[in-house]
Amino acid sequence: MSSFLSSNWSVIPGGITAPNGFQASGVSAGLKPSHSLDLALILAPKDALCAGTFTQSIVRAKCVDLCEKRIAKTKGRVRAVLVNSGQANACTGDRGLKDSLIATKAVAEKLGFLEEEILICSTGVIGQPIPLKNLLQGLTPLVESLSKAGGVDAAQAILTTDLCQKHIAMEAFLGNRYVRIGGMAKGSGMIYPRMATMLGFLTCDAGVPKDVWEGMIKRVANSSFNSISVDGDTSTNDSFLAFAEGESIDQKYYDDIENGLRKVSTYLAKSIARDGEGSNCLIEIKVEGAENQFDAQSIGLKIANSSLVKTAVNGCDPNWGRIIAAAGNAEVLFNVEDISLWIGKYKLMEKGLPLDFDRDLVSNYMRDIVKGEGKKTLNIKLIIGKGNNEAICWGCDLSSEYVHINADYTT
Amino acid sequence: MSSFLSSNWSVIPGGITAPNGFQASGVSAGLKPSHSLDLALILAPKDALCAGTFTQSIVRAKCVDLCEKRIAKTKGRVRAVLVNSGQANACTGDRGLKDSLIATKAVAEKLGFLEEEILICSTGVIGQPIPLKNLLQGLTPLVESLSKAGGVDAAQAILTTDLCQKHIAMEAFLGNRYVRIGGMAKGSGMIYPRMATMLGFLTCDAGVPKDVWEGMIKRVANSSFNSISVDGDTSTNDSFLAFAEGESIDQKYYDDIENGLRKVSTYLAKSIARDGEGSNCLIEIKVEGAENQFDAQSIGLKIANSSLVKTAVNGCDPNWGRIIAAAGNAEVLFNVEDISLWIGKYKLMEKGLPLDFDRDLVSNYMRDIVKGEGKKTLNIKLIIGKGNNEAICWGCDLSSEYVHINADYTT
Repeated sequence: MSSFLSSNWSVIPGGITAPNGFQASGVSAGLKPSHSLDLALILAPKDALCAGTFTQSIVRAKCVDLCEKRIAKTKGRVRAVLVNSGQANACTGDRGLKDSLIATKAVAEKLGFLEEEILICSTGVIGQPIPLKNLLQGLTPLVESLSKAGGVDAAQAILTTDLCQKHIAMEAFLGNRYVRIGGMAKGSGMIYPRMATMLGFLTCDAGVPKDVWEGMIKRVANSSFNSISVDGDTSTNDSFLAFAEGESIDQKYYDDIENGLRKVSTYLAKSIARDGEGSNCLIEIKVEGAENQFDAQSIGLKIANSSLVKTAVNGCDPNWGRIIAAAGNAEVLFNVEDISLWIGKYKLMEKGLPLDFDRDLVSNYMRDIVKGEGKKTLNIKLIIGKGNNEAICWGCDLSSEYVHINADYTT
Repeated sequence: MSSFLSSNWSVIPGGITAPNGFQASGVSAGLKPSHSLDLALILAPKDALCAGTFTQSIVRAKCVDLCEKRIAKTKGRVRAVLVNSGQANACTGDRGLKDSLIATKAVAEKLGFLEEEILICSTGVIGQPIPLKNLLQGLTPLVESLSKAGGVDAAQAILTTDLCQKHIAMEAFLGNRYVRIGGMAKGSGMIYPRMATMLGFLTCDAGVPKDVWEGMIKRVANSSFNSISVDGDTSTNDSFLAFAEGESIDQKYYDDIENGLRKVSTYLAKSIARDGEGSNCLIEIKVEGAENQFDAQSIGLKIANSSLVKTAVNGCDPNWGRIIAAAGNAEVLFNVEDISLWIGKYKLMEKGLPLDFDRDLVSNYMRDIVKGEGKKTLNIKLIIGKGNNEAICWGCDLSSEYVHINADYTT
């Protein structure tokens, strides 16, 4: 964690296309009834290496299977990713795979690549197939508009119920040159680890060996996309794809690269949690003093995912008992007598005992965050013992707006 | 399941005090700000046998520890249970145990029993100690009003955010006499298995050996109180206590007794789910075709606990994809190609493929249930394979009212 703070990555303009060699585009192909942007394409340079992690749901969309298969078959040598939003194309039977094959074949032909070098990610309503004719018609303008400036349109085109685009780019001077990392993501409902319900894409213009890259992406996904919860629901289509291509970088910079990847991924993951459907704030939960990192993360996620904690935050209610109760259900052994708890700077519990505190003061502090502009961050900190491990997880409050959004999603 | 349907138990008036020899009472001791009934007492006859199951949260109230300890120490020979509502007396440090000891000692003295023969269950806000002076002053009227008619007041006094009392009694003619089983419960938020957040009490006027009784209660708890979810949160104080006392019954009737216990417990568990905070209906989820009962229950609970399924029901939205997605996250292996799915009588999916259906028709069907009077039941059925095992789980819809209730619980 310390190296995470010390590396010299700084934010630069641009998103997924900021690294050298990557292009993207986004168009409206008439997939969404709203006629907003709904079809995106990412073009990776020759010899780019792609690693992916995918939903662990038993019910996966066929496009997810296809991605996994093609990454394995090409040993990560993937050239492009097509992303359609509006329809998840999951639970659509044989048609799911057939349409994914047709779509990627058409992209391959237009770009002059092999079919197996093209991936497809779909997001939207489960059970709905892609309006394939519209998608195919959209491919021509999509390919024609591929450019280094197209990252913004791509970041917009992958959204569903998201209220805002989620993309970022960073750079660091490593050795004798700048390395850039770009990323974009979508997701604001059906978000939970074992891949949060989301699509995430990363690009990097440094060359890293395959096994090293795959290890980096796995670890980075765990501390970012696998550390958020909006509603505890994992989706059928979650995918996180990360590309690296460029001059090989000395292995002494691998830690720096991983730090950069983590910064970008964490930014995107927090953006997803912050943009949680109907939410008013980001909740950041830090769990310290655990015997191991997994325990800390389990407790953090249990708190992030508790409806009662989330509604308490929504009501600006310092009802810390719910936080402790949620922690108690993480199937992690700890002693209540060791627990200390803070909301923001206010210590509410010390070594298992509630402290006297000014309820109005803390409630007002929470109100400033929850009712304030711009979705601020509410910090919750727990020390659960004397261990040396910690984890940070992110969630959001639960509002009646969440219910309204999700009560009327398809009808 | 077949024997559950075939036994001859019928509902009779009365609740916890319907079986011979049991008395109860409920008074207002000024524990709740509302001055409604908040202190209850159950008196068991001499030689009654008590079995209990308790919350599996790491963070337990001291009264739960005390119950478990005293049941073990007395080998189940418990004479009375004191229940206070308004304060959970969890996370209150040493005071939690001290106050529980003082309260039970005072009850023991008033009734002429040993301290260890008295149990105490607390429910309410976590972190709040019991206003002990009020409780102690309330004990005199509480003990004086113990009666066979006092079950109703007791059932009222144990409630917190519940909108309605939950109690029932049944009887069956077994051999040469009637056996009666009574029960009461509370709970409508912080409800999830590993003991739903709840208090439950059962009485039975048949004599059953200790090991047999304990086995029955464990199995019955699993298929009732451990098969419901309101919000996925397990509490610090969940307790289920079951008393048996009376003429010994022939072991050929043990299955009948267990069926009766299951009927009473299932009624109470469903009442809790139906009364889920802010809910408009009970959701009953039947999962068939599983390799084993645990798998079926895991899937049922995952569906019952999905915010997206719950909000879809609230919005009368036949968004079956969310049901399938929730099933896919239960960590149970199955083939999507084997899944068939019904909402009510409407089949929406067959062998993994969505069926064409009249969305308005199904939505109107759901609307009749969700918007209708009296919290009706919405049935969801899944067949997940060719196995011979099934489970039924219960939940409720998620409304914006749930958020309102829980956003303002303590402040």
